[in-house]
Amino acid sequence: MTTLLIISHPDMIESSSQQYFLSSIKNQDDITIHHLENLYPDSHINVAKEQELLRQHDRIIFQFPFYWYSTTPLIKKWQDEVLGEGFAYGTRRKPLAGKEFGLVLMIGVAEREYQAGGEELFTISELTKPFQAMANKLGMIYLRPLSVFQFFYMEEKQKMDTLIRYWQMLKMERDISLANRENWLIDQLRQVSQSNLETADSEIIKFAIERVQENRDQIDELKMVLDDMFLE
Amino acid sequence: MTTLLIISHPDMIESSSQQYFLSSIKNQDDITIHHLENLYPDSHINVAKEQELLRQHDRIIFQFPFYWYSTTPLIKKWQDEVLGEGFAYGTRRKPLAGKEFGLVLMIGVAEREYQAGGEELFTISELTKPFQAMANKLGMIYLRPLSVFQFFYMEEKQKMDTLIRYWQMLKMERDISLANRENWLIDQLRQVSQSNLETADSEIIKFAIERVQENRDQIDELKMVLDDMFLE
Repeated sequence: MTTLLIISHPDMIESSSQQYFLSSIKNQDDITIHHLENLYPDSHINVAKEQELLRQHDRIIFQFPFYWYSTTPLIKKWQDEVLGEGFAYGTRRKPLAGKEFGLVLMIGVAEREYQAGGEELFTISELTKPFQAMANKLGMIYLRPLSVFQFFYMEEKQKMDTLIRYWQMLKMERDISLANRENWLIDQLRQVSQSNLETADSEIIKFAIERVQENRDQIDELKMVLDDMFLE
Repeated sequence: MTTLLIISHPDMIESSSQQYFLSSIKNQDDITIHHLENLYPDSHINVAKEQELLRQHDRIIFQFPFYWYSTTPLIKKWQDEVLGEGFAYGTRRKPLAGKEFGLVLMIGVAEREYQAGGEELFTISELTKPFQAMANKLGMIYLRPLSVFQFFYMEEKQKMDTLIRYWQMLKMERDISLANRENWLIDQLRQVSQSNLETADSEIIKFAIERVQENRDQIDELKMVLDDMFLE
């Protein structure tokens, strides 16, 4: 499976969360990192090239800071120009049908505010309806989004958990069992740890592997407890 | 009451619906027409000037084609830059609190598709949650939106009805009675018809006044029928 990761951020270099996630996916053959502001500093999008890239990938991800409950201006421009009538919809052919679409949202406000009674009033599911409707129109499969709330305030353990969810968003096939998911992740992490990483990055990977194994141990223990209960 | 009408359209001149509505509100003292692409052809927004304009008006309207269920890239840029932390929210002062906010959406698909089971899957109320959340964050009063579906296919009478709803969106105070609404509208239209209009425009206004009076006559007749029923 190949993933096209479309990233947009008005100030990418300054964003510690964006840099954290990006540094974890260097040199991955099956992920194309596509930073729009970098590619199109004058905002003139090469529509034919973008459409070709969409055809070549199985999973399309938009990654952006969730300012005013929506995309950056450049992703919106990309949507309006690249996903035009005649290419994306409006004819019998729907070249993106059956592919997967997902969101990675960087959010500055706490998760608890995104509900009725919270300061932001609506859930992320409610606020992202325009993207769900887009996937529907294009015949794409809409994935569970990855919402990263207040990355800046996270402790190391939380950051690591989020990093694992990020990897799953980018690389993991849908609908595989929990045990397979863990094995898959450990494999992925081992592959990375064998490549040429800076010390800090390789420490991160090591820590992540330990976390996954630790979780698995906990689940195994829980299973044993349950088994004991039923045997009594 | 003063209204700031923020219009954005990637190809304003070519849009017959935009031109139709714009031609009806020439020379209105209480409406500031603010066409973003015209003002900022290079997309560099004068943030201080925009914030000052917001302070000066009671009602703020975004008017745009509803591509991919959201704003144009330039309105999004405007939101991200003008409605910044420290001005619009995040301090004790909320300079836009108590003002009104509304949407005028130009939509290419039929209204019946915007519901569960329809091709667009969601209602306009669902798809515009990001704007409702924005108004909430700014302490603004969210108005019923004006959704103009398939203007291109409308008959003259429908266009005229839509034009009247457009005027109400831009100029009518909230919460006035039906009789007052009609009188208000006839007054407004008469004022316009006395100003220097091209013949085509003045015909439109005349037609609109007749439509309102006709509606009122119908309502009056209905009232008489109801009165008769209760007297019997």
